[in-house]
Order: sequence, then structure tokens, then C-alpha cells
Amino acid sequence: MEKNIAVIYGDCASPEIVTQALRVLDAVAEKFGHTFTYTKVLMGGEAIDAYGDPLPQSELDKCLQSDSVLLGAIGGPKWEGLPGDKRAEKGLLRLRAGMGLYSNNRPAKIWPQLADASPLKPAIVEKGIDFIVVRELIGGVYFGEHRTYEENGEKVAVDTMPYSEHEIERIGRIGFETARKRQKKLTCVDKANVLDTSRLWREVMHRLAAEYPDVEYREMFVDNCAMQICKDPAQFDVIVTENMFGDILSDEASEITGSIGMVPSSSLGDGTRGLYEPIHGSAPDIAGQDIINPIACILSAAMMLRYSFDMAAEADCIEAAVNQVLNDGIRTADIWRPGCEKVGCAAMGDAILARL
Amino acid sequence: MEKNIAVIYGDCASPEIVTQALRVLDAVAEKFGHTFTYTKVLMGGEAIDAYGDPLPQSELDKCLQSDSVLLGAIGGPKWEGLPGDKRAEKGLLRLRAGMGLYSNNRPAKIWPQLADASPLKPAIVEKGIDFIVVRELIGGVYFGEHRTYEENGEKVAVDTMPYSEHEIERIGRIGFETARKRQKKLTCVDKANVLDTSRLWREVMHRLAAEYPDVEYREMFVDNCAMQICKDPAQFDVIVTENMFGDILSDEASEITGSIGMVPSSSLGDGTRGLYEPIHGSAPDIAGQDIINPIACILSAAMMLRYSFDMAAEADCIEAAVNQVLNDGIRTADIWRPGCEKVGCAAMGDAILARL
Ligand SMILES: CC(C)[C@H](C(=O)O)[C@@H](O)C(=O)O
Ligand SMILES: CC(C)[C@H](C(=O)O)[C@@H](O)C(=O)O
Repeated sequence: MEKNIAVIYGDCASPEIVTQALRVLDAVAEKFGHTFTYTKVLMGGEAIDAYGDPLPQSELDKCLQSDSVLLGAIGGPKWEGLPGDKRAEKGLLRLRAGMGLYSNNRPAKIWPQLADASPLKPAIVEKGIDFIVVRELIGGVYFGEHRTYEENGEKVAVDTMPYSEHEIERIGRIGFETARKRQKKLTCVDKANVLDTSRLWREVMHRLAAEYPDVEYREMFVDNCAMQICKDPAQFDVIVTENMFGDILSDEASEITGSIGMVPSSSLGDGTRGLYEPIHGSAPDIAGQDIINPIACILSAAMMLRYSFDMAAEADCIEAAVNQVLNDGIRTADIWRPGCEKVGCAAMGDAILARL
Repeated sequence: MEKNIAVIYGDCASPEIVTQALRVLDAVAEKFGHTFTYTKVLMGGEAIDAYGDPLPQSELDKCLQSDSVLLGAIGGPKWEGLPGDKRAEKGLLRLRAGMGLYSNNRPAKIWPQLADASPLKPAIVEKGIDFIVVRELIGGVYFGEHRTYEENGEKVAVDTMPYSEHEIERIGRIGFETARKRQKKLTCVDKANVLDTSRLWREVMHRLAAEYPDVEYREMFVDNCAMQICKDPAQFDVIVTENMFGDILSDEASEITGSIGMVPSSSLGDGTRGLYEPIHGSAPDIAGQDIINPIACILSAAMMLRYSFDMAAEADCIEAAVNQVLNDGIRTADIWRPGCEKVGCAAMGDAILARL
């Protein structure tokens, strides 16, 4: 197959991991007889530097014309303190919205080889941590109106959190479909004792639950969920939630795996075109040192093959190589422990390539 | 001193713990020569049953006429599914707002006797968990406008999250003052890369930081904070944050102590009149069985003595008795472990009374 991939190298240490992910994609293409072409797209800090805008329309258009987008991570101290609309992160929000990517899928899974890195006790980890946070990505308070104005001699700021039935229904359906393919357990997380949006979520989710009688459905308040993720993560299979709650809970969820440098993510809309990126940030503190872990980005590329290009064998091949590297005790600094071989970012790429 | 305390027995298992807290207060009054009188107030489910309203004005007035309010916990399955304004929790929100309690103080502290109950690894716990979440309690999305309406043939819900400078400044000041009395480290948690309210928080906090040069001040995004609380809780001294983020993070913070049945809280406004309540809920599943842990409620009463009545010696006396009970291996079911004596709620009250 021929696929054109829009590639956002990103800021700070990010280009280092994207480079390794592209090497892996090239090797897979060769092995399986595909042709992957790459279109470089500027977003975030790099785009601010080049165009004074974190995502010019021309760059968004390249993404919309691609078969999918691979991203490292954007932002960094250089671009902080810029006014709201000029910030690096704004590029990412515009990309998600511009591509219609309402469904963000963030797996929280323990790698057996790295189980000891979890901050949770072994007794909790051994019960199993393997769940997915399905986060609504282009609605809620991220995309509601934001205003700051003067009133009675002081500033007042207001953020608005809107949700409509169709926005909830389409992500709710992804939640149920995802659960159906797994352990068939779905938890909808909200704050229905306070928010109108959460009550509308429940109303729509109840309708969907009737359509998916094979899925065990329950609801949980977000404050309780933040507790339960630490206390008993084995209870979760799939969590579906709104944008802001998903942001908070998916970060907590990836943290309890102990290996945030290993967590990929996918963002999808109605078609097959998606955005694939690590959960971690652009790691300004280690930029240019060849020590960042490229695995989350490489696994994001594997997710792209699986979910956007329907290339399951190719994705399996990458994931198996990553697994083998871990079995062989090869580690970047973030996941290194005594007895293992410490390698840099490029050498980790080499190690994975050698095992494809 | 003479003090009148408004007492909200609460729902489900809650009256059992409030009863024990009042026994302790009576014993302290006798020991130190005070007179505490109690005014019973109905709120939550009990008030819905009696008046069809989770907090009638007459009940709120009793609280406003008291010297402080002691609460167990409200709500339960019996009152779920009621329309928004009739829910048990709405009584609590109206009480907080009606009393002007903008500052909610939630300590996350490991009890050395119960350190093994933390879900976190010993290596993390040993670094120390002892921080306070200062949560803004009567602003933000909890008290913004909530609307649900029809548009283009579907329902749309909108919650609004407003903050004004004076609301931020008064809670920000509590954050700095609290830090000044402790390790002098304050972390303001927000989502300034997305929210206008968070950007206004930062603006106001920067002004305050200049007034408190002795306090080490920093800012952190809420998603990162949810990670850091699991990863390295020893880094925190005082966290100050808006209402919704405070709800989520303080629950996560109390969970990592491993003993949520031990965590009290205070809510204060400009005067000395406060509301004191455990962090935990009304425990419907164990109501009437005399097994709920009364310690969080008893420690809430101690906080009332310390912060609203300026009775430090009296508060110390209660806290020392609780500490002694734990040293003596006396435990309710939630904190019991092999080798300890398992007691019920009333017997735990007895044990604490005996050690005052
Ligand atoms: C950078 C930021 C706007 C973004 C978000 O909050 O969505 C990030 O935290 C994420 O989760 O991808
Ligand atoms: C009951 C609910 C409205 C309340 C809140 O969210 O404030 C509770 O979770 C709490 O934290 O006291």
C-alpha cells in the first residue's frame, strides 16, 4: 500500500524520537512491501518561529490531505508566556479540532518487564493494570467560549463547558465499541452531582447502554475515579469521559504504569485519518542529548498502522520488537535499572530496528 | 468558653460518627471547663425527607447563628435520581455558599501507624506525605450558571466556570499564609494552557507571590499534578487550586494516605465560623452496623476547636488520644490489620474517650 504520512517533528527533544519512529516505519514498509511518503508539517513552537502562528491553515491543510499524522510533542519554555492564541499548545488544539478528532484513546498498561517502575505497591500492580481512557477531545471547556472582562473595577474570567447530545453520543459509542472488543466493562466518569453537562452525558449514555446489553456499564464521579485509579486500577477496562476529566485521569493512569515514556495515543474522528502521538511532553530539559526514550513515539506509529491503515501484522511486528528489546534488557535512561544496558535514543531505535 | 455548635448528623452511617464526635467534644468541654451546646440542623437527605428541600433557609439560619458547624456526611441511594436542585448534595453546596466558606482545607498526611495502608510503594511513602490542598470552595464551575436547552433538534448543556480577581486573591492569600506556617512551599495548580480563568489565577497569584517573598511559589498544570501526587508526593507542602481541580486532587491526595476514614477537613470564610467535616462519604453500605470509622469526624471536631475556637490545647488533646489509640493497636474495620484489635464505631469512641 501507499500511504502519505504528515509528520510533525515537534519541539525540544521531540524531533529525536520522531526520527527514530520514521526509521522504524521505513523498515516496516520495506519488509511488508509498502510505500510510506512523509510530508513535513510545522506545528507548535517551530511554527511560531517560522510563521508567528502555532498552526497556519496551510499546515493544517497538509494534515487534512495526508492519510494520517504522526506527532512527537510540542511546546517548551521558549514559547511560554505568549498570549493565549499564540501559544504552542493552541496549535495542537486547532489540529485536533480541524481534523475532527473527537476520540482520544490512551492506554494504561503495565509492561511486565517494567512493572517495578509503578509507584503503586506490587500487590496492586499484580492484580493487573490494563485499561484505556477514551477521552472526548474536541468539546467541553477546551472549546467553549473563553472571556476575560472588567466588572465592578476588577477582572472576571469565564470559561464555558458546552456539550450537545450528538457530541456525547459519538464518543459514548466509541466507549461501548472499545469495551466490546475487550473485557466488556465500561465506566463513564463525570460529575453529575454538580454539572448539567454531566447529567446530559448520563442521559445519552443510558440510551446507548440499552443498545449494548453485553457491556457492563456503570458511572463514577471524577473525584472518586481519581482515587480508584490509585487504589484498585484492576477494576477498570474502559473509561469514557469528557475532555478535561480525560486529560487529568489519563495522565494519572499513565503515571501508575510507571513508564510514561512508553505510552502512545491515538486520536480519531469519523474517518480513518488519525493523529498519533506519545502521551509525554517535549522534554526541554534533555533536548539535543540523545537520551529521550523513543518508544512511545514508535508505538504511536504502530497504532497508526493498526487503526488508520488496517495493517495489523505490521503493527504486531513493531510491538513485538519493542517487547523483545525490553526482554533483552536494553533501556533508555528513564526506564533503566541495574543489570540493564543503558542506551540513548538513536541506539534504542537501532535495537528495535534490529529486532523487526 | 461557651460555644454553640450546629450539628448536622447527616445520612446513612453518618449519625454514628457524629454521635462519637459529640461524646468527645463533651468530654473535652468537661476537662477544660467549657460549655458546648448543640443545635441540631437538618441538611441533605434528612432535610429532603422532612421538608422536601435539602437545605431550607431556616436550617441555614441556624448554622449562621452558630459558632461553627459540625457535619458528618450526606446523601445516599435513597435520594439519587432526584432533579438537580432537589439532590442531597445541593444542600451542601448551598451551605458552603450561604456561610461564605471560600477556603476548604484538606490535609493529606500519612499516619505512621497506618503507613502500610498507602497504595504507594514504601520507598515513596518513606520520603514523607504531608501536604495540604487548599481548595477554593464557592466559585468556579460549581457556582457558575448551568443551562440545558434545545438547539437544532438536540439537547445542549452548558456549565460556566467564572472567577473574579477578588475570589482568587482571598483564596490565594490563604494558600500563601498556610504555606508560611509550614514548609513555605506553595504550588498553584491550574490549566493555564487552556483556561482563561487559570490565566487570571496566575495573574493574581503572581501579584501575591511578590508579597510573600519568603514562600517558594510555583505553578503546575492539573494533569501533571494528578501524576505527581502518585509519583512524588513528598514534593508538595501546600497546593492551592480552584474548586473542581481541588475536588479531584484532594480525593486523590487522601487516597494515597491509604486511610480515607481518617481525613478531616475545614471550610472557612472571612470570620471564625467554619464547617468541619470528614472527607469520606455517608457509607450507605455499612449504615446501622456500628462499623464505620468515627476518627475523621472526631478529628474534624478537633480542627473546629483549633481553627474556629482558638482552643489549641483542647485540639492537641483529642489528636493525642487518637494517636494513642492507633499506637495501642485499636482499629475499626477499614484500618484493621492482623495483630490489631478490631472494634466498632462506638467502641472506637470509647477508646478515644478513655485516652483524652
Ligand atoms: C498541551 C495540552 C493543551 C494538552 C491537553 O490538555 O489536551 C495535553 O495536556 C494533552 O493531554 O495532550
Ligand atoms: C458531594 C459533592 C458535591 C462534593 C463536592 O464535589 O464538592 C464532594 O465531592 C466534596 O468534595 O465535598
